[in-house]
Amino acid sequence: MISLPSFSDIEKAHHRIRPYIHHTPVLSSKSINEMVGADLFFKCENLQKVGAFKFRGACNSVFALTDEEAKNGVCTHSSGNHAAALALAARMRGIPAYIVMPENAPEIKKIAVAGYGAQITFCTPTLEARESTLKKVAEKTSSTEIHPYNYFNVICGQGTAAKELIEEIGHLDVVMAPVGGGGLLSGTAISTKALLPNARVIAAEPAGADDAFRSFYSKYLQPSVAPKTIADGLLTSLGSLTFLIILKEVDQIVTVSEEGIVAAMRMIWERMKIIIEPSSAVPLAAILENKLDVKGKRVGIILSGGNVDLGKLPF
Amino acid sequence: MISLPSFSDIEKAHHRIRPYIHHTPVLSSKSINEMVGADLFFKCENLQKVGAFKFRGACNSVFALTDEEAKNGVCTHSSGNHAAALALAARMRGIPAYIVMPENAPEIKKIAVAGYGAQITFCTPTLEARESTLKKVAEKTSSTEIHPYNYFNVICGQGTAAKELIEEIGHLDVVMAPVGGGGLLSGTAISTKALLPNARVIAAEPAGADDAFRSFYSKYLQPSVAPKTIADGLLTSLGSLTFLIILKEVDQIVTVSEEGIVAAMRMIWERMKIIIEPSSAVPLAAILENKLDVKGKRVGIILSGGNVDLGKLPF
Repeated sequence: MISLPSFSDIEKAHHRIRPYIHHTPVLSSKSINEMVGADLFFKCENLQKVGAFKFRGACNSVFALTDEEAKNGVCTHSSGNHAAALALAARMRGIPAYIVMPENAPEIKKIAVAGYGAQITFCTPTLEARESTLKKVAEKTSSTEIHPYNYFNVICGQGTAAKELIEEIGHLDVVMAPVGGGGLLSGTAISTKALLPNARVIAAEPAGADDAFRSFYSKYLQPSVAPKTIADGLLTSLGSLTFLIILKEVDQIVTVSEEGIVAAMRMIWERMKIIIEPSSAVPLAAILENKLDVKGKRVGIILSGGNVDLGKLPF
Repeated sequence: MISLPSFSDIEKAHHRIRPYIHHTPVLSSKSINEMVGADLFFKCENLQKVGAFKFRGACNSVFALTDEEAKNGVCTHSSGNHAAALALAARMRGIPAYIVMPENAPEIKKIAVAGYGAQITFCTPTLEARESTLKKVAEKTSSTEIHPYNYFNVICGQGTAAKELIEEIGHLDVVMAPVGGGGLLSGTAISTKALLPNARVIAAEPAGADDAFRSFYSKYLQPSVAPKTIADGLLTSLGSLTFLIILKEVDQIVTVSEEGIVAAMRMIWERMKIIIEPSSAVPLAAILENKLDVKGKRVGIILSGGNVDLGKLPF
């Protein structure tokens, strides 16, 4: 029997992580609103610690451990934001973090994770090597594995972003998030349906990595095979837990083009003067490409993160 | 007898423009603070309307006019942020704005100014042509000229940014602003000396456009001749009014290298996830280049704007 997170689990998570996270601002742009004919409210998780919402889930997972569970530390495999988030959360609790990273992870990510004091084990860049290396590390250190998204307390932590958004802005007709592994989307959906039962929860996904879209409409969990998108936070498949929640709580999943993602990203950079990574731009891309009707509506959008390599911009 | 703005003029300006401006946030970065060994508080005028502090001064100037003065509109020559700021402020008051722009102004600026409903007159890109064209436009329309910085009510408007910063953050040891024409620096200095008499006001300027530095230390107003810097908001000379205020209220002016400006800009983009234009990065560049001692101090920094051409980034 799988236990799904409820909104009261998200409330507990919020209480637990509040001393450690940034309460990120909600920004709006008059010019973007005029362009799309709707009121968009952007929850700025690009301004969260480590530059992404991932810190919420990692932090909740680390601080939810008992002292006994925590003392041997935590571990995960990740080449991205979850690794940095888990490393920082572990440092805040004063426990070790063991991170398995593929050798070809971006240098900037390796430096960030090492900078937070994590112990890194490098492996060849295949899912098999990552998982087998992690298994060895976990056995050797007796540390607790914290999966980047298919993990109860990670999902509860990610749900606190939408909770803050709705508590600040009030009524919304639609709440949107990008979907990769589904941790953010799951938490967002649970918070939204609890606080605004009539709001629609709509996920946006790159057409080049549309496994969530296919899984949602076929009701059959389909893996992400050879995804191809600039939105590098959205390459992974859904997990067993996130897929169940998404089937139950999400109203719609739409897909967008690569050009649409770059255009939406550029619009947010130029009009709002904030740096977002391509994954964050996917919901606005869906609106700009008319994949859903938001005319006259109040729409909340989670901007998932702001970690980009400034040397490799798409414009 | 020249009348210099006092802090009470800035208070009046703030009261006047408060319904129209954004009260911009003050952001900090733990990692930048650790790097420089000081507490830096960034006042985010890149998030101001039209993407720059310039809107404060333009707005104050437009709304300070009597109905009789205002009815024929306002005019200026500008290729940059002041033109957009004045156009938007005039539209908000419902009066015409006549902007003289050099033909070679960036296309994006022309579109922005036209988008705010201003009437643009193009001229050849020399100061003489700009001034003579503006004179003709002003005579023909009987509109009021609003100079971009050497103008009493512009300076009062710009001073409201530092006023908000200090009201929010409280005690500061140092307040920094970049210096171009000196409008922002003048207003910043007046607000700071009134609210924090013991704080030092320090301006930062590109070494490749160091006319304010030379003028300040020689006590003789020296023009900006063939300035060369990426900080395109800081190319102009001081004005008669701003020079007097700066001599009276500013404690120090330091200069920075071009490499330093780019490095500071990149640091703010990467660490703070906000978009600033090169001019905004000049004060942080001065700190990173050890041009002043801020160890253990609380330092307020005005980030002047965020208007950059994303197609022409220096990294």
